Amino acid sequence: MTRTVIESKTKTVVIGFDEPFCVIGERINPTGRKKLAAELEQGDFSTVERDALEQVACGAMVLDVNSGAVFTNKMAEDPRYADNNFVEPPLMKDLIARIQAITDTPLCIDSSVPGALEAGLQTCEGRPLLNSVTGEEERMELVLPLVKKYNVPVVAISNDDTGISPDPDVRFAVAKTIVERAADFGIPAHDIVVDPLVMPVGAMASAGQQVFALVRRLRDELGVNTTCGASNVSFGLPNRHGVNAAFLPMAIGAGMTSAIMNPVRSVEMEAIRAANMLMNHDPNGAEWIRFSRILDAVKEGASFPEACAAQAAAGGRGRRRARG
Amino acid sequence: MTRTVIESKTKTVVIGFDEPFCVIGERINPTGRKKLAAELEQGDFSTVERDALEQVACGAMVLDVNSGAVFTNKMAEDPRYADNNFVEPPLMKDLIARIQAITDTPLCIDSSVPGALEAGLQTCEGRPLLNSVTGEEERMELVLPLVKKYNVPVVAISNDDTGISPDPDVRFAVAKTIVERAADFGIPAHDIVVDPLVMPVGAMASAGQQVFALVRRLRDELGVNTTCGASNVSFGLPNRHGVNAAFLPMAIGAGMTSAIMNPVRSVEMEAIRAANMLMNHDPNGAEWIRFSRILDAVKEGASFPEACAAQAAAGGRGRRRARG
Repeated sequence: MTRTVIESKTKTVVIGFDEPFCVIGERINPTGRKKLAAELEQGDFSTVERDALEQVACGAMVLDVNSGAVFTNKMAEDPRYADNNFVEPPLMKDLIARIQAITDTPLCIDSSVPGALEAGLQTCEGRPLLNSVTGEEERMELVLPLVKKYNVPVVAISNDDTGISPDPDVRFAVAKTIVERAADFGIPAHDIVVDPLVMPVGAMASAGQQVFALVRRLRDELGVNTTCGASNVSFGLPNRHGVNAAFLPMAIGAGMTSAIMNPVRSVEMEAIRAANMLMNHDPNGAEWIRFSRILDAVKEGASFPEACAAQAAAGGRGRRRARG
Repeated sequence: MTRTVIESKTKTVVIGFDEPFCVIGERINPTGRKKLAAELEQGDFSTVERDALEQVACGAMVLDVNSGAVFTNKMAEDPRYADNNFVEPPLMKDLIARIQAITDTPLCIDSSVPGALEAGLQTCEGRPLLNSVTGEEERMELVLPLVKKYNVPVVAISNDDTGISPDPDVRFAVAKTIVERAADFGIPAHDIVVDPLVMPVGAMASAGQQVFALVRRLRDELGVNTTCGASNVSFGLPNRHGVNAAFLPMAIGAGMTSAIMNPVRSVEMEAIRAANMLMNHDPNGAEWIRFSRILDAVKEGASFPEACAAQAAAGGRGRRRARG
């Protein structure tokens, strides 16, 4: 049985075929968020801390931490800041230290800079997920030794030096190459979480079916867990949440075991909770019934994060009462 | 390729592996609707007519017509009315005649009374779907000759004289028996639409997985289309629409090709429209984009049937303008 174990100092999350779907919160990422990048440049981690707690309250089981910030002001003063190899390693350390100080949710260290990955591995307690290796030769040679040295699981994205193939057979072959290369380093398949790459269905009509077929093959033939940037499937379409909310259960039904996504969205989280129950990963429906109370609060006007936080607080009080 | 062809006088609907999911509207059914039964007893078909048009506007591709009414007042005057073999055949004729007069949507003739099925077949134009045969010996001997005589497709429910088995292997075996018996009558597998029976996931935690596995087997091993009473999966649970809206895409991903359901529910219909696109059965996303406009109108306060009807009317005007 394929089990990918991710740990903080005190908490364990298992990604696996017989586990509830693993939601990896994507929001701590300055790449597409200029305001967040500007805050980080000034040493302000308040948004990061709020995003961490909010994502955990909404159901993130792992938090992705991406250090891809561009520090435009510092760059004007010091040309070294134009190089992400200079910017990201210390930033990754700071990000992880701040997040670890306020939550025990396991982390996913996310950077295209190998130095930032290693800085994160040095700082992070427990057994974080590393994000990512690809089928690019240089990337495999740089990242897989880190995976081995720190004994952590890694996300493997199925593109290589030729880019992202629109042909799912090629993407499968790239994933297979990474798994084989990892084995050469002594890294077992259960520590590889393959991202088969989700294309926008509005641009490529077969995108959904490609992913469902790929996920089944990756599971049956390579025995690996899978992940994806789920929201990519709806890029360019109206009512994206509706597309995502159908895609996620279908991917889960095909065998997808995790996604890097925004958990602060009730529509997608509802779809995942229902799919967990329908996959028999919520046997007595307890999680669904608990989640339905949050949806009731949302219908009465609460925001989704508020309703989640309120229920977590109420649950805490309930437990204390029961013990007291 | 398995294609189940259902026709009205002028319209053809195909249930198939490469077709959009076939939504069979379930609302014309006096069995659980006392008020509707009382109206029908007085010869009032206004609710039936309204339900027919509303379901079609909301996206029903086939209309189920169930004649299972109990006429309590007439029963008090005339004991023959206690027998459904007396009540249903003329009622089925009336129902079909009324519905055919106002819509060209193909019909599904639904009764447990063989005489009502035949009365429906005599009245119905085109090639209706018959609902249903089971694996019960008596039922197969009564219904399959009608299927052959009128050359229509039939829903086959996978229970037999021993009842409904909780074991999916037994339900598969029952379906296989019906397909084989139908073949003895000269009825091809593509005219059998198997209902593998959906259990409530709240009562049987493996219910979802059972159906997904059964649908794949029915498709791969028997080559048949499938249908189900979709909402049964969420029986007894809170926020049923959320469960149904995850179940339907998962079932579609597993290969389910139709469902008997309430189309006057935007949540479920949204899930089906998105799943159609993700299965590459809405290649340029045109249907999804059209449906998204309906969802926009619902967000602005319209009811779902109103928004559907308004868009159908606008579309009709648009077409006339384009031609004129």
